[in-house]
Amino acid sequence: MEFRLIDRIRELTNQPRDDVKLGIGDDGAVLAVPAGQELVMAIDTMVEGTHFLPGTAASDLGWKVLAVNLSDLAAMGAEPAWAMLALTLPRADADFVENFAAGFAQLAGKYQLALVGGDTTGGPLSLSVAVHGFVPPGQALTRAGAQVGDEVLVTGTLGDAVAGLYALRDPPRDDAHRAALRQSLIERLTRPEPRVAVGIALRGLATSCVDISDGLLADLGHICSASGVAAELDATQLPRSAALRELLGEDESLQLALSGGDNYELCFTVPPDRMAQMQSALADIGCAVTRIGRVVDGAGDVRVRAADGSWLSIGMKGWEHFG
Amino acid sequence: MEFRLIDRIRELTNQPRDDVKLGIGDDGAVLAVPAGQELVMAIDTMVEGTHFLPGTAASDLGWKVLAVNLSDLAAMGAEPAWAMLALTLPRADADFVENFAAGFAQLAGKYQLALVGGDTTGGPLSLSVAVHGFVPPGQALTRAGAQVGDEVLVTGTLGDAVAGLYALRDPPRDDAHRAALRQSLIERLTRPEPRVAVGIALRGLATSCVDISDGLLADLGHICSASGVAAELDATQLPRSAALRELLGEDESLQLALSGGDNYELCFTVPPDRMAQMQSALADIGCAVTRIGRVVDGAGDVRVRAADGSWLSIGMKGWEHFG
Repeated sequence: MEFRLIDRIRELTNQPRDDVKLGIGDDGAVLAVPAGQELVMAIDTMVEGTHFLPGTAASDLGWKVLAVNLSDLAAMGAEPAWAMLALTLPRADADFVENFAAGFAQLAGKYQLALVGGDTTGGPLSLSVAVHGFVPPGQALTRAGAQVGDEVLVTGTLGDAVAGLYALRDPPRDDAHRAALRQSLIERLTRPEPRVAVGIALRGLATSCVDISDGLLADLGHICSASGVAAELDATQLPRSAALRELLGEDESLQLALSGGDNYELCFTVPPDRMAQMQSALADIGCAVTRIGRVVDGAGDVRVRAADGSWLSIGMKGWEHFG
Repeated sequence: MEFRLIDRIRELTNQPRDDVKLGIGDDGAVLAVPAGQELVMAIDTMVEGTHFLPGTAASDLGWKVLAVNLSDLAAMGAEPAWAMLALTLPRADADFVENFAAGFAQLAGKYQLALVGGDTTGGPLSLSVAVHGFVPPGQALTRAGAQVGDEVLVTGTLGDAVAGLYALRDPPRDDAHRAALRQSLIERLTRPEPRVAVGIALRGLATSCVDISDGLLADLGHICSASGVAAELDATQLPRSAALRELLGEDESLQLALSGGDNYELCFTVPPDRMAQMQSALADIGCAVTRIGRVVDGAGDVRVRAADGSWLSIGMKGWEHFG
């Protein structure tokens, strides 16, 4: 059965690429990194009950496990190329595999990403993807380059995914308008769009970059720690969707925007004198970018100023999967 | 907690390599494949209850999950370079992580392999490793090149690991001599030695190669299918350890040698006129290699001739993890 699962996934995710010398089906894949490119790689796992609710659609899982990995490449400014998949299933389930592969292939196709290796095995439902991409030498975006005076920016809107999880866990009876808003948040949870084009466009412009998987405060905290700086955010500038604001209200939506994980927007820093160039580089991508604060002198902390000018007191520091 | 686990693993597995431009600790790692090399990669997962017994020592798991991946690189003739680890643990367990990392580092150190990325998460115990290595362009060993007339060879001895699993599952009360034999089989299960040096030495000499993870018949069957040939084996030539023969007897040890998985020896094919060159290439490696049969005309099947010249009837085709 193992071999048929892999064959079916291979059929559905087939992406011809010149740099794949030998794809799925041998003990290993053989790849050629293009001359003059460095290789960027990351690995991420999703476990039932930890990262997604039992009963989540297999097609959504296929999309999402690739999306969270592509989001790591995006945060590095890398162009996606190849992935390997380790799929652990309680039983050989042809429908699950078919739908999982379809969701995976839907996102992979956007980037001509080839699935070049895999392992399927029996056990509690769990998905690991290792993803690989390219970046010109020395141009990878990292967490370590933020400078005092840089602007702090984020893509998209913050906090929607956790609100989507609330909506899935505890579906209220509601009118059609609110149901539609709620659905839009659920889709942010189940079908995140990795900001690949933004990451690539930020090469040579952003001084640091991270994807928001653990929550804005936690992930911007990683930038500040790695860069030896601090950051001050303006709570009134945090981009929040209309759905999030209307359904959760001002206070809770702000809290989720600051601390909600599973979000996969990028947070990055840009020196003031590169802001115009950055805006023009992103102009054609169609992804909103919002300035939310500034890098200041300090030792890794992230402070948030409220509308009345006071500093918010923040207890939550984002998700860590071991609590 | 996630971050501390990764930090500890990083400390214990630190391998300075010039080709690692950015290691663990950012959204992705940045690597430079040496000029004139292709990249070989593979991924393998081990799940508690499927691939190992509950209570298996964490240090053995750390060794083995890397070993089974390095065995894939060995089968491709690749030189190990980097790995990423996805570790799913029921709870944050510092002792487990310490011992796991020590076992992993013990094997990684033999090959100066660097752990460049990781993800730790909560859930049922499961380990995935993605491994990366190098091979000169066009020199990767595959399953697809076996030719009629080639000799079929294997490294080491066959069937020991499954016998080791029997011994672990059902430990008999026994004398010291038999207990020592049993322990030697258990070590073949828990601490397999990937045949990396053999795989590299076989570049340009072997026409096909596979590692024996599913059992000799199944894995040699993969070579035959991929190459469009068949194989005939001589049962009297299958290399079996003294421990296996003494503890399990002639018939059962033969059956395990043919069908026992989790073995991680290499099976490969060599044209008769390259045998002398092959033997001299392997002379300094210190790994026994045994000729067990020959590639013949056919459509993927593997036949085994018994000592009396009759063909063995074989029901088992090796392990498939969805049974």
